[in-house]
Amino acid sequence: MSVKAYGATAANRPVEAIEIPRRDVGAHDVQIEIDYCGICHSDLHTVRGEWGAVNFPCVPGHEIVGRVSAVGASVSRFKEGDVVGVGCMVDSCKACHSCDQDLEQFCENGMTGTYDGKTKDAPGHTLGGYSQRIVVKDDFVLKVSHPAEQLAAVAPLLCAGITTWSPLRHWKVGPGKKVGVVGIGGLGHMGVKLAHALGAHVVAFTTSASKVQAALDLGADEVVISKDPEQMKAHARSFDFILNTVAASHSLDAFTKLLKVDGTMCLVGVPEHAHPSPNVSILIGGRRSIAGSLIGGIKETQEMLDFCAANNIVSDIEMIRADQIEEAYERMLKSDVKYRFVIDNSTM
Amino acid sequence: MSVKAYGATAANRPVEAIEIPRRDVGAHDVQIEIDYCGICHSDLHTVRGEWGAVNFPCVPGHEIVGRVSAVGASVSRFKEGDVVGVGCMVDSCKACHSCDQDLEQFCENGMTGTYDGKTKDAPGHTLGGYSQRIVVKDDFVLKVSHPAEQLAAVAPLLCAGITTWSPLRHWKVGPGKKVGVVGIGGLGHMGVKLAHALGAHVVAFTTSASKVQAALDLGADEVVISKDPEQMKAHARSFDFILNTVAASHSLDAFTKLLKVDGTMCLVGVPEHAHPSPNVSILIGGRRSIAGSLIGGIKETQEMLDFCAANNIVSDIEMIRADQIEEAYERMLKSDVKYRFVIDNSTM
Repeated sequence: MSVKAYGATAANRPVEAIEIPRRDVGAHDVQIEIDYCGICHSDLHTVRGEWGAVNFPCVPGHEIVGRVSAVGASVSRFKEGDVVGVGCMVDSCKACHSCDQDLEQFCENGMTGTYDGKTKDAPGHTLGGYSQRIVVKDDFVLKVSHPAEQLAAVAPLLCAGITTWSPLRHWKVGPGKKVGVVGIGGLGHMGVKLAHALGAHVVAFTTSASKVQAALDLGADEVVISKDPEQMKAHARSFDFILNTVAASHSLDAFTKLLKVDGTMCLVGVPEHAHPSPNVSILIGGRRSIAGSLIGGIKETQEMLDFCAANNIVSDIEMIRADQIEEAYERMLKSDVKYRFVIDNSTM
Repeated sequence: MSVKAYGATAANRPVEAIEIPRRDVGAHDVQIEIDYCGICHSDLHTVRGEWGAVNFPCVPGHEIVGRVSAVGASVSRFKEGDVVGVGCMVDSCKACHSCDQDLEQFCENGMTGTYDGKTKDAPGHTLGGYSQRIVVKDDFVLKVSHPAEQLAAVAPLLCAGITTWSPLRHWKVGPGKKVGVVGIGGLGHMGVKLAHALGAHVVAFTTSASKVQAALDLGADEVVISKDPEQMKAHARSFDFILNTVAASHSLDAFTKLLKVDGTMCLVGVPEHAHPSPNVSILIGGRRSIAGSLIGGIKETQEMLDFCAANNIVSDIEMIRADQIEEAYERMLKSDVKYRFVIDNSTM
């Protein structure tokens, strides 16, 4: 089957309308008519070849929401018409220790990314959600129970949502905990919403005074301008956990100092240029940790989607047509979006 | 009371014989006749003013073993003649959250170091174990139950021992766990002994082929030459925990890569020049952590001493006379010691 998509045919080409192949529906496959696909920063960097060699044609997109249009003979969990989601992974070995622990994102044999992952299907690498349809193994398809009018805003939960949910859960964020969220963008705005819904006392950190009201509206209990040393100092040694969503190179020390004894700061963004080397004394002086976290497993992603549906949580989005993707990329580079672009795939 | 000690009267002066005051024995005090005092790298850096301003006279020494020579009226846990130890702390507020949790090393009001800590006693800062006697609040005195012939080798347990024991316990090192110890010196050799005694599979990392047999003799199950990329690669993604005792600036990435998913590398040394900034992708790609740890609380120090006595564990030491301290410092700077110098305080 050939379907319409938006992708780049070379690193120096824009994302434009192309046709791509999709495999036939196998016994364990779910075919999905894609309604919406969120735009993640990874899309931009990957498709432009900025994160190393990439296979072309490159069709990005791993924040996918749509309706099941066909299922294979062995699929029992889904039926035609079901509203479903697909996130950053479409396969893993399902046999290693990580997969056994529902941590497919750390599959020891390598998980298959939703785009630019190795696959037996033509053209030899996976093609993502900037397309009309996708065919995915049922184990990697998520159920979406949000109401119909929220589905576009559900799409970013599949990456931005789980990327923030997983560390918040792993480090046991909840009532009685003071939690920081650094950076109020695509990831950070979800971090604030989720930490708030989990019952924590949430402090948002932003460099920009113009984002203070927005962060409060998202659910932050307090907002700190991280460039203001006095404001920062007032929170010294007080955080149980800090979720740092900022990928731009910055001083980690400014935040690790704010952790309590045994506190952890978790990074979810990979900086293009290394952060200044963290001060080891600050870690030693409070048994503090700097950690990293990568999306989340499929089971945890389903838990996040169910939690969001139950708590009326979606992403704040701006919907665009498929022919506006390049324009959206340029605006993302200027942080000119609140807080996630989502493609209306019916415009392909 | 005036007692003999070894200390420096200025940063450019050697450690030499001096006389220092000791306070009278208060109701909660224990007066100790010091038999042995270990020499820690901190002593050297502090007394030479390399770690910032220091108060003179400076009498280092926080690995103290001796016998109780007098006790205050309110002291019930100790009596004259008891063999006791004093480590890196001689006081803390005993009222903050950290103190409540037996984490006096992280006292929110600042613990009092055994030397160069602020005190009401003359001369206004604490004077350490390079001396004939010391007077210490009973809460900060440890019981030593090792046999008499081992007491010199017990002294380094009070700093090198607890500094490695505390993170090994905090990160639950024991049977079924694969644990790395980076650096086989004063701290590392204790880390290997303790991790082995706790039942873990211990891998020692050293840059020096000449230390392989010594590390095996200490209890390592395997030894890896960390400069050899092939040997390192063979251990990729396999460690539950790595205790990194190396303070010299080095690549942390070489070791974080060896951690399993959810593994932690704990640093216990403060580098003079920052380590190269750790690669965030390695942390994110396995939910790995880099942490720090500082000595241990008093309760935990007692547990460590009791464990060591029960398991016949002491430090490997070279005993020196007090007038050899400067010579010992020079040899420490060349790593020419297996693995800790201990002063025979009777030579003062």
